[in-house]
Amino acid sequence: MTSPTFITKLVVDSWHIALHRLNQHLDSLTNDQLMLRIAPGRNRGVYLLGHLTTVHDKMLPLLFLGDVLYPELNDLFLTHADNPETLFPAVSDLRGYWHAVNSALGKKFVTMTTEEWLHRHSAISEEDFAKEPHRNRLSVLLNRTNHMSNHYGQLLFLKKGALE
Amino acid sequence: MTSPTFITKLVVDSWHIALHRLNQHLDSLTNDQLMLRIAPGRNRGVYLLGHLTTVHDKMLPLLFLGDVLYPELNDLFLTHADNPETLFPAVSDLRGYWHAVNSALGKKFVTMTTEEWLHRHSAISEEDFAKEPHRNRLSVLLNRTNHMSNHYGQLLFLKKGALE
Repeated sequence: MTSPTFITKLVVDSWHIALHRLNQHLDSLTNDQLMLRIAPGRNRGVYLLGHLTTVHDKMLPLLFLGDVLYPELNDLFLTHADNPETLFPAVSDLRGYWHAVNSALGKKFVTMTTEEWLHRHSAISEEDFAKEPHRNRLSVLLNRTNHMSNHYGQLLFLKKGALE
Repeated sequence: MTSPTFITKLVVDSWHIALHRLNQHLDSLTNDQLMLRIAPGRNRGVYLLGHLTTVHDKMLPLLFLGDVLYPELNDLFLTHADNPETLFPAVSDLRGYWHAVNSALGKKFVTMTTEEWLHRHSAISEEDFAKEPHRNRLSVLLNRTNHMSNHYGQLLFLKKGALE
């Protein structure tokens, strides 16, 4: 049970657990609720949904798994901060993009070997990676799982009475 | 580079990265700021600091690494929700407990082998663990890293102008 495959699976499972928890929460919120600010002066739920979608979408090329599916989201939800004057896609469309992106990732994840997870990601050169082998795809997954958890904690504020 | 030790280290590093980021943020907040609510009607910063401290403290027995250091925090910050009527330890004391707990964990973590990380945690019986070997100490670490990230995202709201 100390096999590399077993340990890698624990990490991938942790991603899926965090994603499942976030999805359960998103499903409990109406589209109208997602249009509200998380807290006074803070991002709206719709912005965080778009932000998470584009960050996950960009994992496809970062992990050498394919092209981004929704390149237009980068500018709206990553380059720029939330701005109620900006025209965003409808929440129902964003929900669809979110699931499409995570589904595309999940389908690739099940086929990946430990060796592939420990391959470099696309934002580091072969040369630098030779010196810093921890900058691999599995580290990206760990980082993005934590990123998703950050915003999950914030999105909880859209739920009345949820204190944690 | 597909050694179990290397992969386990990536997971432990991810804990340390999340902890370092949270500590940088906590250091940037004054004790007075931590007495504020994260958002209207939500937990105060001091509650989240105490909550994180007791959850990390309880990792010591959960991972078979020793006894909890501050058993009195469990009741204040885990069993009960935040309540401004309750007398909490001073923020400066809580900061000390927080660092003591994480330091105790960190000292144990550096000595742990992959085999030890994949051992059962103390909340599962030998029998159940034989059937569910993924319920090990490394899974606890992954879970608690995500838990810390949840609350990090929320604590960011105490910083003026921080949108993410």
